Amino acid sequence: MKTKFWLILLLAAFALGAIANSQSDGTAALLKIEGEFMKAAAEHGSQGYLSYYADDAVEVPNGEAFLQGKENIAKTMGFLDNKDNHLTWSPVGAGIAASGDLGYTYGTYEFRSKDKDGKPAVNHGKYTTIWKKQKDGGSWKVALDMGNSGQ
Amino acid sequence: MKTKFWLILLLAAFALGAIANSQSDGTAALLKIEGEFMKAAAEHGSQGYLSYYADDAVEVPNGEAFLQGKENIAKTMGFLDNKDNHLTWSPVGAGIAASGDLGYTYGTYEFRSKDKDGKPAVNHGKYTTIWKKQKDGGSWKVALDMGNSGQ
Repeated sequence: MKTKFWLILLLAAFALGAIANSQSDGTAALLKIEGEFMKAAAEHGSQGYLSYYADDAVEVPNGEAFLQGKENIAKTMGFLDNKDNHLTWSPVGAGIAASGDLGYTYGTYEFRSKDKDGKPAVNHGKYTTIWKKQKDGGSWKVALDMGNSGQ
Repeated sequence: MKTKFWLILLLAAFALGAIANSQSDGTAALLKIEGEFMKAAAEHGSQGYLSYYADDAVEVPNGEAFLQGKENIAKTMGFLDNKDNHLTWSPVGAGIAASGDLGYTYGTYEFRSKDKDGKPAVNHGKYTTIWKKQKDGGSWKVALDMGNSGQ
């Protein structure tokens, strides 16, 4: 009886460990995808950026109304195609569901541009991105993205 | 053989339906908790508000730096104890993981206050809240909250 008890305890500990490991692996996978997302935006502008958005994504821009759906979001992303504009970001933290189909990343961003006199201008801000695993082969896409000012 | 095929198909449809139902139930549960969260803040000020925050919660305030941990967030929530201040919010959408341990809500908020001359002042903004089911009996708590301006 005692052996059985310890065996169950051992199996439970093992199962919990496996869940914890898979969640930590999942968070690492999300952060990797976020890096690829930034690279796609840097190399291919708005098209690269939007290739990581789900069709039903929601954008929550600072000072503006919600944008529902990738098509509406795309209309505001043309600035990424201007060679003077460079949007980069660094994650501060991330989390993921036990089921591995929903997660989030948050961090800081830097937007380098030029002002109207052609002088370099830098804006700093923060973001939260909610990621959802899609049904088409299981790729992660942005379900919601929100930005605000200050770091 | 044909009967078995249909039986499996029926069971699969049933299982998918159950998952879809549980996710829709989960989203409804989240929205209900968000309503209770707002009521707690209205009735008990900062204490009521913070009772819905996880100990390791992250606040992403507009124009300010990240706040890591409920203790640090609490230091900035005293304004909710001023009887002139009324913070209310309305969800626009929500999502939840298949495992039902991580979800999010987003929407608009209204902050009614008084300006320095005692005249009523209203500010509008948007929010995203990430909810995580806690291990202590499974209550939902805020894991991350972010606000920005404009509706």
